[in-house]
Amino acid sequence: MKAVNLAEKLSTFTEHWQPRTVAEFNGHDLMVVKVKGPFVWHRHDDTDDCFLVLAGRLTVRTRDGDVTLGPGEMLVVPEGVEHCPEAEEEAHLLVIERSGTPNTGNPQTAAPRRVV
Amino acid sequence: MKAVNLAEKLSTFTEHWQPRTVAEFNGHDLMVVKVKGPFVWHRHDDTDDCFLVLAGRLTVRTRDGDVTLGPGEMLVVPEGVEHCPEAEEEAHLLVIERSGTPNTGNPQTAAPRRVV
Repeated sequence: MKAVNLAEKLSTFTEHWQPRTVAEFNGHDLMVVKVKGPFVWHRHDDTDDCFLVLAGRLTVRTRDGDVTLGPGEMLVVPEGVEHCPEAEEEAHLLVIERSGTPNTGNPQTAAPRRVV
Repeated sequence: MKAVNLAEKLSTFTEHWQPRTVAEFNGHDLMVVKVKGPFVWHRHDDTDDCFLVLAGRLTVRTRDGDVTLGPGEMLVVPEGVEHCPEAEEEAHLLVIERSGTPNTGNPQTAAPRRVV
């Protein structure tokens, strides 16, 4: 059992939209990720998607409207809801998804699972 | 779908060790809680316990040693591991547990589930 310092984990990489798993929890990955620019429209049919903004600002677009989050704000996108995260400037997030979830919704295009 | 501002949710109450559910995620409660002083030794036999410190400092005591967390640091206590959280000064946490988990490990003494 070890404390996980999120800023320290974020300092170990620079790529955008390449989450790193920092801990596991009840079959879920707790991940940090740096994001910038638009991601891809996608959905997850078997998991909710949880975003917590640690730094910067994130907009989560959905077909029903956009939600913008600042530091200390979180959003749960229910399973099956199509969404497209986007950040005008670099933002740092904690993301929680069921382990094995492809981040793009598609195993062919998903970032590989990486643990730090 | 709505942004959840954790500081705003924390500002709606003052009691210690009385978590408030701010969102649900894959059968889990995402909760904010204010803590101060020692909690009780307990364990959860059917869920990991996830703590993220938002403000202040938290020590999680276990039979194998203590882990102290500051802001931006998280810890997963695996299911079945006896632990006692403690904060010398008031601290604010995000806690994630399977929905329905008694916070003391015992339904008789647990805080009621409250949603804010």
